[in-house]
Amino acid sequence: MSAPEPPRSASSAGDGPRPPVAQTRSGGRVVVLVSGAGSNLAALLGAHQDPAYGARVVGVISDKPSAGGLEIARAAGVATAVVAPADFPDRESWDRAVAEAIAVFRPDLVVSAGFMRILGAATLDRFPDRVVNTHPALLPAFPGAHGVRDALAYGVRVTGCTLHVVDAGVDSGAIIAQQAVSVETGDDEETLHERIKVVERALLVEWVGRIAREGIRVEGRHVTIG
Amino acid sequence: MSAPEPPRSASSAGDGPRPPVAQTRSGGRVVVLVSGAGSNLAALLGAHQDPAYGARVVGVISDKPSAGGLEIARAAGVATAVVAPADFPDRESWDRAVAEAIAVFRPDLVVSAGFMRILGAATLDRFPDRVVNTHPALLPAFPGAHGVRDALAYGVRVTGCTLHVVDAGVDSGAIIAQQAVSVETGDDEETLHERIKVVERALLVEWVGRIAREGIRVEGRHVTIG
Repeated sequence: MSAPEPPRSASSAGDGPRPPVAQTRSGGRVVVLVSGAGSNLAALLGAHQDPAYGARVVGVISDKPSAGGLEIARAAGVATAVVAPADFPDRESWDRAVAEAIAVFRPDLVVSAGFMRILGAATLDRFPDRVVNTHPALLPAFPGAHGVRDALAYGVRVTGCTLHVVDAGVDSGAIIAQQAVSVETGDDEETLHERIKVVERALLVEWVGRIAREGIRVEGRHVTIG
Repeated sequence: MSAPEPPRSASSAGDGPRPPVAQTRSGGRVVVLVSGAGSNLAALLGAHQDPAYGARVVGVISDKPSAGGLEIARAAGVATAVVAPADFPDRESWDRAVAEAIAVFRPDLVVSAGFMRILGAATLDRFPDRVVNTHPALLPAFPGAHGVRDALAYGVRVTGCTLHVVDAGVDSGAIIAQQAVSVETGDDEETLHERIKVVERALLVEWVGRIAREGIRVEGRHVTIG
C-alpha cells in the first residue's frame, strides 16, 4: 500500500456554520475505487471541475498498481493509493487496509467504478450506505463479473446499467438509478458493453452529483435522494 | 368446455399460389388465450382489421366463463371456447382439452395474453415454439404472477415488459421482444402496471404482426424474426 497524501481540510464554509446534518450528509468528498482504465473516473473528474457539480474526487484507490485510472487521477492532481491483495496475508487484512486507505480521505461517498473486487465488512461497516457501485446490467438480472456476456447468452432484448448501494452480497444492494440499453441484432459482448458504458458514465456523473448536492437516504431497499 | 365454432378456411390467396414455406411459417392464424378483461386481445382485434397487418385472430379461448375477453371476441365476430379446469378431473386432462380447443382453429401462433394458467406439455408439444406470452417485467427479472409488485418491492428504477416463447418453465422461454418502463417516484402497483400495460399492448401488436408477416425461428435462447 502506497501512502496516500494526507487529505486537505474540507472546503471552508464561506457562509458561516452550516447545520451539522447537512454537512454529514452531503459534504461532496468522493473516493473512487478503480481496477482498470478508469473511464468512469475520468468522467467524474471532468464533472468535478465545475464547483456547482457539488462532488469532488479527493482520492483514488486501486487494487492494481498498473490500473490506468491511477494515471488519470495523478494527471488531474488527485491523490492516489494502491492496496494490492498480494501485499497482505489474507482477505481480512486487505479489506481493513482498504477501509483505512479510504478513511484517510474522509469521504462522504465511495464510488466503486470498475473495481473488480468484493468489498468486505471492514469497509462496508465503516461507510454504511455510503459505498455505491456501477453494474453493466439491469439488476437484479445478471449480477456478477459477466453482466454483459450473461445478458447476451440469455437472449434479452433490453439490458442496461445500475447504480446501487453496495451491501454484503454480490450486486444485491438497494438501487439508486438504472437506465435501459437495447440489445441490437449482431451485438457481441464488446459492442454491447461499449454502448452500456456510455450510458453508465452519464448515469454515474448525474447521480453522484445529485447525492453530493442533495444527500442520500437508504431505507431497506429504497433509496431517496434529496 | 363449450364447443368452439368450426374454423373458417384460411383467407383466399388473392394473388395466386404462395410459396408453401411462407404459408406454413406465417399463415397469420392467431389463437388468443385470455383469463381477464382482454385489453391485449382488444388491441390485437383492432390491428387485425387491416389485412396488411398479416395476423388474424381466429379464436379466443379462456379458462374462465366470465372472462371479459370472451365478450370482446364475440363482439368482434371471433369464435370463442371456454376450457375451465373445474370441468376436468385433473390438470393433464384439462391441458389436453386446451390443446384440442386450440388445434380446432389450426393456428400458426398462440398468444397467451393475460392467461393466468401454466400451459402443460400437451399444448406446448403440439405447438412447439408457437406459443408466446406477455409478461409485465423485464425477464429474467421478476417472473411469476406478481411481476409488477415484485419489481416495486425490489426497488428497481427500470422495469418493463417481455414477449417471449412459452416453454415448460415459468416465464423462462426465449425472448422475442422487450421494452423498458421507468418506475416513477410515488408509483404503486396499480399506477406502474397501467403504464406497463400501455407499452405491453403496443409491443404485442407490433411483434405478433411481424411474426405473422415474416415468420419466427427459435434456436436455443435466440429468436429470429424474418
